[in-house]
Amino acid sequence: MSSEYTIYRGEDGLIKPSLVPKPELGPKDILVKIMHSGVCGSDLAYLPYGLALGHEGVGIVEAIGNEVTQFTVGERAGGGYHRDSCGHCSYCLSGQDIWCYERSVFGEKDYNNGTFGQYYVGKETYLHKIPEGMASEHAAPLQCAGATTYNALVQVVKPGDRVGILGIGGLGHLAIQFARKLGTDVVVFSTSRSKEEAKQLGASEFYLLDELEKLPKPVNTLVVAGNKYPDWKKFMTKNVLARAGNVIPLAVPVPQGSLEIPAFEAFFDGYNIRSSLVASRAKHDEMLQFAASHDVKPWVEKFEMSESGIAEVVGKLHANKIRYRGVLVAKDA
Amino acid sequence: MSSEYTIYRGEDGLIKPSLVPKPELGPKDILVKIMHSGVCGSDLAYLPYGLALGHEGVGIVEAIGNEVTQFTVGERAGGGYHRDSCGHCSYCLSGQDIWCYERSVFGEKDYNNGTFGQYYVGKETYLHKIPEGMASEHAAPLQCAGATTYNALVQVVKPGDRVGILGIGGLGHLAIQFARKLGTDVVVFSTSRSKEEAKQLGASEFYLLDELEKLPKPVNTLVVAGNKYPDWKKFMTKNVLARAGNVIPLAVPVPQGSLEIPAFEAFFDGYNIRSSLVASRAKHDEMLQFAASHDVKPWVEKFEMSESGIAEVVGKLHANKIRYRGVLVAKDA
Repeated sequence: MSSEYTIYRGEDGLIKPSLVPKPELGPKDILVKIMHSGVCGSDLAYLPYGLALGHEGVGIVEAIGNEVTQFTVGERAGGGYHRDSCGHCSYCLSGQDIWCYERSVFGEKDYNNGTFGQYYVGKETYLHKIPEGMASEHAAPLQCAGATTYNALVQVVKPGDRVGILGIGGLGHLAIQFARKLGTDVVVFSTSRSKEEAKQLGASEFYLLDELEKLPKPVNTLVVAGNKYPDWKKFMTKNVLARAGNVIPLAVPVPQGSLEIPAFEAFFDGYNIRSSLVASRAKHDEMLQFAASHDVKPWVEKFEMSESGIAEVVGKLHANKIRYRGVLVAKDA
Repeated sequence: MSSEYTIYRGEDGLIKPSLVPKPELGPKDILVKIMHSGVCGSDLAYLPYGLALGHEGVGIVEAIGNEVTQFTVGERAGGGYHRDSCGHCSYCLSGQDIWCYERSVFGEKDYNNGTFGQYYVGKETYLHKIPEGMASEHAAPLQCAGATTYNALVQVVKPGDRVGILGIGGLGHLAIQFARKLGTDVVVFSTSRSKEEAKQLGASEFYLLDELEKLPKPVNTLVVAGNKYPDWKKFMTKNVLARAGNVIPLAVPVPQGSLEIPAFEAFFDGYNIRSSLVASRAKHDEMLQFAASHDVKPWVEKFEMSESGIAEVVGKLHANKIRYRGVLVAKDA
């Protein structure tokens, strides 16, 4: 490769190519030639800050630092959201490395390194093996949307639970599949009748937001998979969310505000608001294995990894037209 | 006993004696002659509704229904908050009976039955044995304040955690003791320097609300034990509440509003808002055994079970002067 390569970053409200120098690899660094990258709503949230975008990358290991033992050149690797942690705090030592105070995640640091572009530099233990037989175009969206939804669900769901998924997009359509394959009954809530196709993903019931009274039985967990909060009062009532139920928001709306939980119902009906930010590394690997074994597959729309391809996917994302994850594909993939 | 007895209920903003007819005991009912009753802030919240007050009672079994097998006349029994559940739903069958949709808890039904007064009628499996050696004046506050704090803590705390207790009153002073005896380091937050005496209860650190920046290390769990919510932004920041930390409000403020969680911090720092409403029955019994074994004892102030005694305790409760639980004592106790 030459001494520079292309990444993409926000510039004047658009996403533009930008050349960055080829970095010196540290002993644990891995240079991944990106073949596929999912496009996540949170890339757009970071567009005004000018940093390298993309955090759902899958590609081929092109070079490794001199202490790397877990990957070899030519292998597939995925990652991009969770980039580093200290390795010695109580979070790191107990498999909760995503909460490490020294962590680095997409958007927090790493100005010139993202998965939109030709190359991504990952640390050895923050890149993940792609299970054999899993297509890279499917593996890419799993690196953030897959990890986020699986991690949220496995914290709380039990076989036979009723799991509500609110908002059917990149995250929601994976949450449905994981929830179903984890042995639950999946109930979908949406503002759009068109999302009734969620039943093909494993949902058994579908309700518009103005027909919640039709629910025959409340859900035990509500996963809020869209990028807006609902009117919490409509959902935190015991005919919709069962007592002792869980609510898990998977994104934070922009502009950020408060999560306004109805206090009386939260207390007397026993609601729990749970957090989930992507997944710690062990859970990420577990998710990839689970997806491979249970045939959890993102529905993807492919776009060219180029300035025009990115503009196209961003336009469709803004118009809420992606079914259900946009994936950028390198020209030589 | 005569055909009527005295209970106490709210009337014109005061708590007044009221005669109720001696009930016919159902087959599983137990008539308890009340000797001690704790006085909880939530009694005052229900004062405007005219129902029989008191839900932290301990007394002597005076009569039993013809199918009662677990209590005999003359034994001690405690209870008063959680009064019934269906017995056959998934909550009841899995030890989560407090969330049963058919449950009855203090304030929801039972207009003429409370633990302020001469007698309380409890259902057999909703009354609890008092461990031998535990004084009834100590056992009484455990029936609600003890169950509430223990149940909240055991959901989430691990040995070695740092547990923050905000608000040192009837609930908070028990939360400190339970948290300490559960193997955690206890950090107290209060608006009043006088509550530094919490250190005698097992706390190792004390901070006023305007000195949170002095905290050397964040807490893993924050128990909100007072009857007001704090400014959540002051606590939900990673220098005060550790990432992946838990917040457990133990009461709902009056008037009820929203729990306004800062969305950005909740998401990126991984905060969980947990619910706890008293305790299901198995956990209640476990709490009593734990308190007996680990010498967890409410600090009580005793008042006469009479109109004037109740007026006195209510006055001190309003003035925030009780150290730390008022207990009404029957004249013949």
